[in-house]
Amino acid sequence: MDLRDLDSSTCSVARSLEIVGRPWVLLVLREAFYGLRRFSDIQEHLGVSRSVLAARLDEMVEEGLLERRPYREPGRRERTEYVLADKGRDLYPVIVALRQWGDRHLAGDDGVPVHAEHAGCGASVRAELVCEAGHVVDSGDVERRPGPGMRRRDAVAG
Amino acid sequence: MDLRDLDSSTCSVARSLEIVGRPWVLLVLREAFYGLRRFSDIQEHLGVSRSVLAARLDEMVEEGLLERRPYREPGRRERTEYVLADKGRDLYPVIVALRQWGDRHLAGDDGVPVHAEHAGCGASVRAELVCEAGHVVDSGDVERRPGPGMRRRDAVAG
Repeated sequence: MDLRDLDSSTCSVARSLEIVGRPWVLLVLREAFYGLRRFSDIQEHLGVSRSVLAARLDEMVEEGLLERRPYREPGRRERTEYVLADKGRDLYPVIVALRQWGDRHLAGDDGVPVHAEHAGCGASVRAELVCEAGHVVDSGDVERRPGPGMRRRDAVAG
Repeated sequence: MDLRDLDSSTCSVARSLEIVGRPWVLLVLREAFYGLRRFSDIQEHLGVSRSVLAARLDEMVEEGLLERRPYREPGRRERTEYVLADKGRDLYPVIVALRQWGDRHLAGDDGVPVHAEHAGCGASVRAELVCEAGHVVDSGDVERRPGPGMRRRDAVAG
């Protein structure tokens, strides 16, 4: 296949970027992976206004990345917290891959800001490319072929 | 560590998103991983104007993601092609992680648009979270602790 014949907007990378290409989506998800669930905690940590955060959380719930869950502290009224839905949790490899790239290329002389470690064993966590046969894969060792959802550009143009 | 005390802008995820949070950066890199190097090929496949693409490529060369390399076809004047620099190539796990998320959650009934396979063995390629000790890591099994480049929010505020 000549990939130039592929309609570049049907690619899964492009589709994913339509949703997570707004950088704040991944930043809010990062907060969720850190364990922040409450509006005020997320707002304080991200340093955005209430109205901006409310709109973003609404969008992320609508996209199925987060779920609303009610909670109530003793003697207080019911409130809403935001927890990861499966669709949001599945973005964790993207966040880890971004973190390791930033650690390698942008950390500077100060060193890495945060270590991510495997609970229990304590070893550093990274995103690695592997194939289903169990090989570690280098970026130069990947071949692409059309799948069933492939659309050719000429099919789009008519 | 309470991660709420961390200055959220010093995190490597936030820093990476300052560069790759503009979705077109990853789309241009995708073209480079597909093997497209020439301005006209990239332009045609992405369907953007010459001036927009030229500005984007300039930025990506400045960021160190791409390198310019001269080439000359017989009987024609010298031209420039764009090849992946190491800093750009290191983003491949981000692209693979985005692709697999899109394949899983956004492909719909048509199925996956493109299969990415390990050259030689033909098995599907994916981004997997592993630790240095060789364990496969689940998103719920990650702990974070401050690294040397960590900045507390109060240190920033005053």
